Amino acid sequence: MKMVENAAGRMVPDEINGGEAIPFKGVGKHRPGGRKYAPPIPTCIDYPDDNNKVVSSLTEALERCGLQDGMTISTHHHLRDGDLISNKIFDIASKKGIKDLVWLPSASFPCNDPVIEYLENGTINRIEGSMNGPLGMFVSEGRMKGMAVLRSHGGRVQAIQDGEVKIDIAVLAAPAADAFGNAKGTGGPSATGVLGYAKADYLYADRVIIVTDNLVDLPCFPMEIEGNYVDFVVVVDKIGIPEKIVSGTTQITKSPDRLLIAELTASFLEKSGLLYNGATMQAGAGGTSLAIAVFVHEMLRKKGWKLSFGFGGSTKYMVKMLEEGQMGYILDAQAFDLDAVKSVEQNPNHIPYSVFNAYNYHSKGNLTAMMDIMILGATEIDTGFNGNVVTHSDGLLLHGIGGWQNCLHARNVIIPVPLFRDRIPVIVDRVTTLCGPGELIDVIITERGIAINPRRQDLIDSVMGKGLPLVTIGELKEIAEKMCGKPEKAVVDDRVVAAIKWVDGTVIDAVRKVKT
Amino acid sequence: MKMVENAAGRMVPDEINGGEAIPFKGVGKHRPGGRKYAPPIPTCIDYPDDNNKVVSSLTEALERCGLQDGMTISTHHHLRDGDLISNKIFDIASKKGIKDLVWLPSASFPCNDPVIEYLENGTINRIEGSMNGPLGMFVSEGRMKGMAVLRSHGGRVQAIQDGEVKIDIAVLAAPAADAFGNAKGTGGPSATGVLGYAKADYLYADRVIIVTDNLVDLPCFPMEIEGNYVDFVVVVDKIGIPEKIVSGTTQITKSPDRLLIAELTASFLEKSGLLYNGATMQAGAGGTSLAIAVFVHEMLRKKGWKLSFGFGGSTKYMVKMLEEGQMGYILDAQAFDLDAVKSVEQNPNHIPYSVFNAYNYHSKGNLTAMMDIMILGATEIDTGFNGNVVTHSDGLLLHGIGGWQNCLHARNVIIPVPLFRDRIPVIVDRVTTLCGPGELIDVIITERGIAINPRRQDLIDSVMGKGLPLVTIGELKEIAEKMCGKPEKAVVDDRVVAAIKWVDGTVIDAVRKVKT
Repeated sequence: MKMVENAAGRMVPDEINGGEAIPFKGVGKHRPGGRKYAPPIPTCIDYPDDNNKVVSSLTEALERCGLQDGMTISTHHHLRDGDLISNKIFDIASKKGIKDLVWLPSASFPCNDPVIEYLENGTINRIEGSMNGPLGMFVSEGRMKGMAVLRSHGGRVQAIQDGEVKIDIAVLAAPAADAFGNAKGTGGPSATGVLGYAKADYLYADRVIIVTDNLVDLPCFPMEIEGNYVDFVVVVDKIGIPEKIVSGTTQITKSPDRLLIAELTASFLEKSGLLYNGATMQAGAGGTSLAIAVFVHEMLRKKGWKLSFGFGGSTKYMVKMLEEGQMGYILDAQAFDLDAVKSVEQNPNHIPYSVFNAYNYHSKGNLTAMMDIMILGATEIDTGFNGNVVTHSDGLLLHGIGGWQNCLHARNVIIPVPLFRDRIPVIVDRVTTLCGPGELIDVIITERGIAINPRRQDLIDSVMGKGLPLVTIGELKEIAEKMCGKPEKAVVDDRVVAAIKWVDGTVIDAVRKVKT
Repeated sequence: MKMVENAAGRMVPDEINGGEAIPFKGVGKHRPGGRKYAPPIPTCIDYPDDNNKVVSSLTEALERCGLQDGMTISTHHHLRDGDLISNKIFDIASKKGIKDLVWLPSASFPCNDPVIEYLENGTINRIEGSMNGPLGMFVSEGRMKGMAVLRSHGGRVQAIQDGEVKIDIAVLAAPAADAFGNAKGTGGPSATGVLGYAKADYLYADRVIIVTDNLVDLPCFPMEIEGNYVDFVVVVDKIGIPEKIVSGTTQITKSPDRLLIAELTASFLEKSGLLYNGATMQAGAGGTSLAIAVFVHEMLRKKGWKLSFGFGGSTKYMVKMLEEGQMGYILDAQAFDLDAVKSVEQNPNHIPYSVFNAYNYHSKGNLTAMMDIMILGATEIDTGFNGNVVTHSDGLLLHGIGGWQNCLHARNVIIPVPLFRDRIPVIVDRVTTLCGPGELIDVIITERGIAINPRRQDLIDSVMGKGLPLVTIGELKEIAEKMCGKPEKAVVDDRVVAAIKWVDGTVIDAVRKVKT
């Protein structure tokens, strides 16, 4: 493995966990070759005549799927911090003395911290997916055997589709399933609303196990997972802890600074003309985003306008827009709170949506490119408008990418951020880790002013002279540094502990081991 | 190419149109190897930034898809006899001097007879799909250049999935579509209800063209075809002739003999216990099947029972059961009449259903195996309970297989047929063309008695002594022959004009050129 400089000027490995890695070539510059991944052809001969695929336990299902050293096991993150299944897989594997598994979750949560034990004892070689908190620390400290690979939600789908990762066994928890394996996200004690992040897994994995605490009569409708792709069904007492699956408490920020940022953002949307009758919008579930949603809702109501659709992760604030007539549809890959879960179940205009359609860059176009307004966050933004969402300026890997990179392809990408957090500037000279190239980020909105990317003269023109506090990104950085001082550079050594993939599978940056 | 004897004792070619062909090995005996077909990896780079894929004409779309000699072009049959698009493709190709195309429709109809011109002038080499009436005659007379390949609906999906046929361009007519290519079967002047038979095509084709007469705003919901698989969208005045898409006149038989058969069938279902509260059933849209549906509905109502679900092709008689509470769901791949089309659009329990899930044998189980009661037709049944649905006893190829072979995998397969048609016996010594092995066919119900397959002693026991006119299949044959005489053997020569595939891709029989 050697380090090479990619098109963004970042040094990245040319090899990841023994496989070839392609350095980032620039936005829209890497043209994939070859064909999609092709799973083995199954036959009905191998499945029970009555199509009852229920087996006695997850252990039995894993054994019958041929669990062995080095396999890649995938899971989805719809149970979020209430997930009771993922850790159990590695529990079983560890007891059986299995080594060097690769875990490919669509995201991980604090409840998954116990897998550190299995990373330490060799059951798991590495995680390819988001790592927050203690798991991120574990990686940052160089303690994970293999190299972590971080992908966006769309990048995960791209990698699975393209065969960049090959899933041996997908273990998919389902709030409702029938004995054939048809499954959905609504219903039962552990409802997640939708199961959008499980689609790539069940379509492309060699073997698929459904784990449910709510076995229903055939047919389980609407089927988000189709039973004809499923090998085994396992029934357990509980797949999740309901109050941790949906917090029920997605809260609007109470910080005066964040509220100011939200107000400025709403004002920017109005004055720039980006908000119009029929626009499309995606925000998120952070406190500032929720406040923006509320301000936007109010504006729409006053003007008698309606958003054509909003793309989820859905929240009660989106549901309110839908129900009160200010949003035509919610297209949804993930429901963040209880109101959203209920809405998916009851409102025909709240529709489970495919991640392939929304986010996959190796696709014949995707939904994100059609979104007018995209509100995102970041841990750091630099003066080239480049964004970081995975590390802090101390170099610690503490967040996943989520759909962030995918969302950068929207028509107008707006990042409302505070100028600093815990007295550490957010606007910096050069982002610690490059996750998204500046050419895709259009507007930075802080409590001290709005910086528009000079590449978007059209946006600058649209708000010029309309009373908004326009500044340059350089000015924002200087204000931040004046107040907090220049942030210290992360102290890292040469070892690459994580690779950051771009939406096309190339390597946009690498995270190094933090010196302790 | 040489002829070999397959496991059913039929002589079949070991090569079809230059490719290797595997002779039928017996039910559940052929184990597929290898992997599913893998289409090329696309990239968003190649699609318009605004995702507007509308081009000026079908000609432009075909050109931009690189239409050339020898390509395979697929279409679906949801517009049935009102299809205005399929012929146009070959019209365009013919004008451009393109030669040797393969047409892979999910079914063909009388309105497609004009393609005979393009078969004659070399634009089309062959049709792989059903051929009725004049098209079937054309094939039977040995006038088609390539060998026809007939597959069941599930077999078509299997062949596409397994790469046995590779679709270069899928041209998919859509009653509603948006500019991104999301499409559905409901809405607009040419509503078909569902688009179930287009799924394999859009998932596996290298290039996909949507043709619509009803361009709607994004997002076109519920999307049966996902725009992220679509290359181009073409808007035309009319994709179909509404009154020929859905006849609106699916009529119950008025023939006293057929009504007697229907009554006997309903009585058999009741006395055998096959009909119970919660059973699952599939019938069809023929006059006798509709009469059976009406009788069954009446029984369910009297007993206060409800079918768990019915699998479509849906008709107004199924819709009535659904609406009046005698059927839990209609799962549907095709809507046969106007009531069915409306029902799909309005009733959340009338659900578009994947052919992969319902019928694909190279799948991890499928729905058909879970159906309790399966009512099918046949052109001939022999004393070994083997069935023919494609030729008549004169050897002429006049029908497609439809879902017939797939449906044979249901728990109880019942074939109500008249003993003879136009004074030609239906029950014969040996079927002219073998489409389904006798071991999968359980009960033959005629106006002169009910023959139960001796392999199903359980069914014989269930109705013994209950007043039903039980006979042996041999007796049925003798009655038929006594009344009509022994049918003359088809006069054919050695040339194979069509191969009949079994659900696993093997060749179960061959159709020979009829001597004229």
